[in-house]
Amino acid sequence: MLHHLANNDTICALATPPGTSAIALIRLSGPESFNITDSIFVPYKKGDTIQKAEPYTIHFGKIFDENVMLDQVLVSVFKSPHSYTGEDSVEISCHGSTFIQQKLIELLLKQGARMAEAGEYTLRAFFNGKFDLSQAEAVADLIASNSSASHNLALEQIRGGFSAKIKTLRQELVDLASLIELELDFAEEDVEFADRTRFLQLLAEISKEINQLIESFALGNVIKHGIPVAIIGKTNAGKSTLLNRILQEEKAIVSEIPGTTRDSIEDTISIEGFAFRFIDTAGLRSSTDKIENLGIERTYEKIRQSKIILYVCDITQSTPNDLEATLEDFKEHIEDENKRFILIGNKIDELVEMPHFFNKFVDLETIFVSAKRNENINLILDSLVASVKDLDLGDNTIVSNARHLGALNKVAEAINAVEIGFHDGIPTDLIAIDIRTALHYLGEITGEVTNNELLGNIFGKFCIGK
Amino acid sequence: MLHHLANNDTICALATPPGTSAIALIRLSGPESFNITDSIFVPYKKGDTIQKAEPYTIHFGKIFDENVMLDQVLVSVFKSPHSYTGEDSVEISCHGSTFIQQKLIELLLKQGARMAEAGEYTLRAFFNGKFDLSQAEAVADLIASNSSASHNLALEQIRGGFSAKIKTLRQELVDLASLIELELDFAEEDVEFADRTRFLQLLAEISKEINQLIESFALGNVIKHGIPVAIIGKTNAGKSTLLNRILQEEKAIVSEIPGTTRDSIEDTISIEGFAFRFIDTAGLRSSTDKIENLGIERTYEKIRQSKIILYVCDITQSTPNDLEATLEDFKEHIEDENKRFILIGNKIDELVEMPHFFNKFVDLETIFVSAKRNENINLILDSLVASVKDLDLGDNTIVSNARHLGALNKVAEAINAVEIGFHDGIPTDLIAIDIRTALHYLGEITGEVTNNELLGNIFGKFCIGK
Repeated sequence: MLHHLANNDTICALATPPGTSAIALIRLSGPESFNITDSIFVPYKKGDTIQKAEPYTIHFGKIFDENVMLDQVLVSVFKSPHSYTGEDSVEISCHGSTFIQQKLIELLLKQGARMAEAGEYTLRAFFNGKFDLSQAEAVADLIASNSSASHNLALEQIRGGFSAKIKTLRQELVDLASLIELELDFAEEDVEFADRTRFLQLLAEISKEINQLIESFALGNVIKHGIPVAIIGKTNAGKSTLLNRILQEEKAIVSEIPGTTRDSIEDTISIEGFAFRFIDTAGLRSSTDKIENLGIERTYEKIRQSKIILYVCDITQSTPNDLEATLEDFKEHIEDENKRFILIGNKIDELVEMPHFFNKFVDLETIFVSAKRNENINLILDSLVASVKDLDLGDNTIVSNARHLGALNKVAEAINAVEIGFHDGIPTDLIAIDIRTALHYLGEITGEVTNNELLGNIFGKFCIGK
Repeated sequence: MLHHLANNDTICALATPPGTSAIALIRLSGPESFNITDSIFVPYKKGDTIQKAEPYTIHFGKIFDENVMLDQVLVSVFKSPHSYTGEDSVEISCHGSTFIQQKLIELLLKQGARMAEAGEYTLRAFFNGKFDLSQAEAVADLIASNSSASHNLALEQIRGGFSAKIKTLRQELVDLASLIELELDFAEEDVEFADRTRFLQLLAEISKEINQLIESFALGNVIKHGIPVAIIGKTNAGKSTLLNRILQEEKAIVSEIPGTTRDSIEDTISIEGFAFRFIDTAGLRSSTDKIENLGIERTYEKIRQSKIILYVCDITQSTPNDLEATLEDFKEHIEDENKRFILIGNKIDELVEMPHFFNKFVDLETIFVSAKRNENINLILDSLVASVKDLDLGDNTIVSNARHLGALNKVAEAINAVEIGFHDGIPTDLIAIDIRTALHYLGEITGEVTNNELLGNIFGKFCIGK
């Protein structure tokens, strides 16, 4: 939680990841940034001070803790309003030892800076009008993005496409509201300034756009967090060989690049720019068995959470009865419109002839592969990517933030109430209340309407140093 | 291993730790740094280019991959020779998502940059005369340092104190050698240009200084890697409570600072600026038992490796016989001049009267504490710090690098051979060979004498991006 809303003291934090590296960056922002830096920094260029420095310049020198030199550093100078926060700012680029990072931050604190809280730099940028709220949130999304789709989505939101859309909708509602309020002022004269037919038409348009935004969240969420894909099947079906094949395809691509995230975010890979989250499941028992333990229960839980299920079977071992029993087991998921169930017939390399009984399941998407020989794996990848492309809303604005979705749902609800109100001939002053509610929630998305709790929730989720 | 010695193509690498953060820094160095940056960077200030930019300036703009915007970045410009490497250099400060880091590096590679190898920036700084070899090595030490003592040692070495010392010694030897070589040129005339008494005196002085440097390694090594301290004792002696007490003292200090290393470097703490490496040992069986398994064997191995042994005993349970048997077991270590064996009498809180039999071991350093009540723990810490201070060589130059120690040993050996040679009246041309050997190894320390294998060994240990 943020404790320092709208303060203007001077804050500092490490802006690069903790740990040892060639370089670490420590940021200062606030009115005392230059003075604090000058109190510990001795530039090589005689007479140079950060206070007098031109903006966008770099200064080479030494950091001293009283008479003891701590490090040789580069100091970058940014002057209000031309900085990330909009305030006077300094970035100190030091050697990346944890000792130096700690000592330098201690020194800055001793000289009067305060440790920045999570998200406090971006919060200040918001207060100084550098970003609206949805743009500020997209900064956190940009930093967290791990695929080209989620990256572009965050970038588009920072650019303000989504904000502009929301602001346009809000302006239309404000125009509507002002006419309604005008009617209220002249209530005793019983005039209707606003043409009801035009009103309802406008409301329908706004409502349609709000609903499109709400619907776009399905795609937005998937882009942001990756599509959950469960690979399930009996243990000897070749499930793990298949998973390795799928991951290795990607591994080969990312291994050219150092510092990739594959080690930490296990089994999340990006295919054609979309992230897929592969969910490892424990081997399933044959359909006649009961669920016996929590391990299996957890597998079923994961299957429920996933959007795509790859059911892997060993076609050399499958019998029609087996397969039918399995499909009966997963009936609920197969029939779920929001899920895809793909049957993967593995081990085609071991077959002379295709077992004809698979033809019985014509309605089911089936892909025959050899995980061992790496055959037809690309068909699976193509099918996965097609799942996302089916969701594609073209050039429409996409909502990816759960907070925005919540607010949009409230807006839709309020507008629906307005429509019903008009239809039922409810008094104008009551309708005005619902319009104000819709305006309030639209305003919360971009930050035109805000409160400390809301800001605390949003910026508290940022990393320190941003 | 370095494959690109003395190349002057343009290299790039991530200079900040891998992972997600507010900011990441990607560095370019080499003749094409400005052109490569200009090919992907569109500054906000119209007409601005990195090629035309003033040195030490910062440029705000966007990175494009063909027509697709990747990120908003800051580009810092450094012009040869005023950069870390001495070459034209650029630092691109981007948002710290792993996706952006990867894509930006891919883009730079596509535009003709090459991925930098470990240590390649500092290697280039060495080739461009920014550092000598021992200073370059100290850059890696600086980044790795985790206590104020190791930090200051690295900083002193970067400043060139050690290099100056070595160069002075080498110059004295060069002067000596040139007189010897002169004698060789006039060999048939059988003159002695060099006064033998003065020679031997000079050799003795050099020899003394070399030996002082060699001896300083004991302290240098301890400062750099921390003093290994084994805490041993029977399992109910309060060993782990004591360890927690010692570590918690430090925990309280470091917890004020974010991004500390305590999580990763378990049990290494800094007391009064010196690092101590606490070695966790399995509980020891009573002295009459035989070593029964590998676990216990490993404990004894760790005891052998440590410089300080804290033997913790529960004084409420100790008997004179017990204690005597234990001390007999550890006789080898107690009598080792290079080790300290400290007896920790724990649980004084549970005693009414001090057991008088402890007086028998007057020669042994004994500290009575209550780990439970946190009493007298500071006496242990004081004693640990005193161990380092005893080693203190004052203002003398301290060697902390094993490679330097190796070279100095070779120098000492060669000088010893010269002294013996003079003493035994060995022909001057043979003595000259030993002098040249001493000169060679002194030159290897600072890099006046070098070869690719040596450089590969040194810089291959650096982190990528430095």
